[in-house]
Amino acid sequence: MTDERTQVVIIGAGPAGLLLSHLLHLAGITSVVLEDRDRAHIENRVRAGVLEHGTTEILEQVGVADRLHREGLVHEGIELRFDGVGHRIPMTELTGRHITVYGQQEVVKDLLARRLADGGDVRFEVADVQVHDVDTAEPSVTYLAGGVRHRVVGDVVAGCDGFHGVSRAAAGDTLHHLDRTYPFAWLGILVHAVPRTHELIYASHQNGFALYSMRSPEVTRLYLQVGADEQVESWPEDRIWDELALRFGLDGEPWDPGRGEIFDVGITPMRSFVTEPMQRGRLLLAGDAAHIVPPTGAKGMNLAVHDALLMSRAIEHWYSTGEETLVNSYTTDALARVWRAQHFSWWMTSMLHKFPGDDQFQHRLQTAQLANVTGSRAYATALAENYVG
Amino acid sequence: MTDERTQVVIIGAGPAGLLLSHLLHLAGITSVVLEDRDRAHIENRVRAGVLEHGTTEILEQVGVADRLHREGLVHEGIELRFDGVGHRIPMTELTGRHITVYGQQEVVKDLLARRLADGGDVRFEVADVQVHDVDTAEPSVTYLAGGVRHRVVGDVVAGCDGFHGVSRAAAGDTLHHLDRTYPFAWLGILVHAVPRTHELIYASHQNGFALYSMRSPEVTRLYLQVGADEQVESWPEDRIWDELALRFGLDGEPWDPGRGEIFDVGITPMRSFVTEPMQRGRLLLAGDAAHIVPPTGAKGMNLAVHDALLMSRAIEHWYSTGEETLVNSYTTDALARVWRAQHFSWWMTSMLHKFPGDDQFQHRLQTAQLANVTGSRAYATALAENYVG
Repeated sequence: MTDERTQVVIIGAGPAGLLLSHLLHLAGITSVVLEDRDRAHIENRVRAGVLEHGTTEILEQVGVADRLHREGLVHEGIELRFDGVGHRIPMTELTGRHITVYGQQEVVKDLLARRLADGGDVRFEVADVQVHDVDTAEPSVTYLAGGVRHRVVGDVVAGCDGFHGVSRAAAGDTLHHLDRTYPFAWLGILVHAVPRTHELIYASHQNGFALYSMRSPEVTRLYLQVGADEQVESWPEDRIWDELALRFGLDGEPWDPGRGEIFDVGITPMRSFVTEPMQRGRLLLAGDAAHIVPPTGAKGMNLAVHDALLMSRAIEHWYSTGEETLVNSYTTDALARVWRAQHFSWWMTSMLHKFPGDDQFQHRLQTAQLANVTGSRAYATALAENYVG
Repeated sequence: MTDERTQVVIIGAGPAGLLLSHLLHLAGITSVVLEDRDRAHIENRVRAGVLEHGTTEILEQVGVADRLHREGLVHEGIELRFDGVGHRIPMTELTGRHITVYGQQEVVKDLLARRLADGGDVRFEVADVQVHDVDTAEPSVTYLAGGVRHRVVGDVVAGCDGFHGVSRAAAGDTLHHLDRTYPFAWLGILVHAVPRTHELIYASHQNGFALYSMRSPEVTRLYLQVGADEQVESWPEDRIWDELALRFGLDGEPWDPGRGEIFDVGITPMRSFVTEPMQRGRLLLAGDAAHIVPPTGAKGMNLAVHDALLMSRAIEHWYSTGEETLVNSYTTDALARVWRAQHFSWWMTSMLHKFPGDDQFQHRLQTAQLANVTGSRAYATALAENYVG
């Protein structure tokens, strides 16, 4: 077994792990990033695509936003469509802030390129990652690579390896899990098509929710609410297009979101999950390793970025002062935003989806809520504030 | 059987029926008001006590707000209290409008006095009220009084006789009922005590919701969330006071709302109910006869006043133009406000009460919602707009 030492061992090369590594580097703190997939995989996997105003600012401040500013699509509003009528929420007019549509894999590419340019240590295709001794001052992570087991000892281990990663499990039963499973899923497609409109459309229809979005000037990203147990096979292309046109319908007429070649189809479960606390001993969790939000509020990547920022500040403060105050309060500091995002995501999900078993009373409440949000400047501002972050 | 004719037969001498009668009178339209209780009963029964800004304006415009302005308590804010901390929602600062605390029975007294001074025809203690021929141009109402059956024929019958009245049933199965029963009730007390604070306090506590309010400078009105099936007998006075002090607790200390002689105790079920449409033929329904809201949003009497206003305008328009347009659209016009109030009442109820079976995830969402409402000016304004009406 090889043996080495760093200051922070980071598990996972997603947005949280790579940004943390970069932030620590800027503070003069060394880290090793361990990723079980290969580089091509993390640079191409499609995940979230909406950056809050504050997330863009953070990336800008730490010098990784040049391409984001060139290629990202700035959105100043979203549309809520219900009862066959569209209502724009003018986010920038209401809050002075905006969102940027820019794929998570692009953020990962930018962060990784910057880490490598700065001599960062990012190791791909490591297998059998295990976390050890988090309750001691010398926590470590072991993994297999090239048939050999390696060990990296650090002062802190940062678990940034997503919902299915090994980090959270390493904290054992000291973590309390709170969760909510929604009785539906999202069928998502990626399409080679020029976006038909410039802004996202959140549509509430009696058949269920639909979301119109885009990833670039040539690629649209469309979603349909489907049953929790449905399979992609039940959704041939014609059915997807017909259902999208129906749910986006305007004034009683179908509204076609712009057909094109579908080059990716997938079904995403809808789930809320939070672990409390987000740490144990010298193991700190960030991003999806600690919490999952349903995609309706577009908060996933933004929470990961915020966690990484809080964690880097806490670690930096610890190294520079010797005081563990911020490390110890990391969970409390992070959870305030996490729960606000959970509430917003739950609220958007509840307002826009059709729930099995909903009666007509519930449907009327949903419509009244949508009418109130789109009819009141104050309510629209409350939505916009939460959306732009 | 006696037989007579009027223009509008009004069943029920609550706020909706009396205001309607008064509004019709101002437009030169005659009406007869039939009430099965006696005058003392309707002038003393305790119901709602919060008037929206717009409700006060309506009463003022039609000349029945003199005493309201003298004796009503103008409130410019409410407090939301949770996790042992109070947060004021400065309604008037946020919306330019206010609420007035003034008992429903006082509104009834003022309206009745005015009707009688104007020679209005209000008949008390009528028995066995029956509605006939609502699908014809000559609908009528019969009742027993003094051992004799009487019939009053009109052009329109206005059902303003509350949730348990006969009017709604007279429309038969053409009405569709939408409802929601909440799994808890409110225990309410009236207390001879000088209010300890000037504004209402909505408290969310792990034991359940509590509401601090007042009806006059000498009477407080306090509520506790209790189980749906609980009896008053389970709540001796000491238990009520202890539980109130606990739920209103500030900074970990009990907060006593000011003890005094309890002169009324009752348990109110929590229910939402709407009938669609609110009319059949020449029978139009108003107020609780058509819809019930849980008391959390303080909307009940305000909806009744708004219904009466819409109905009087519709009937006046019909008499003056011969066109039934507004009569036919009465339901559509009224329901927009009704559903907005239903949503607001449901939202306030959900945000502040403890629901049986709620898990910790749900509790965190509630707290995040309360933090968002009290922490965001936009969100607080959205609440205030709905509250002041």
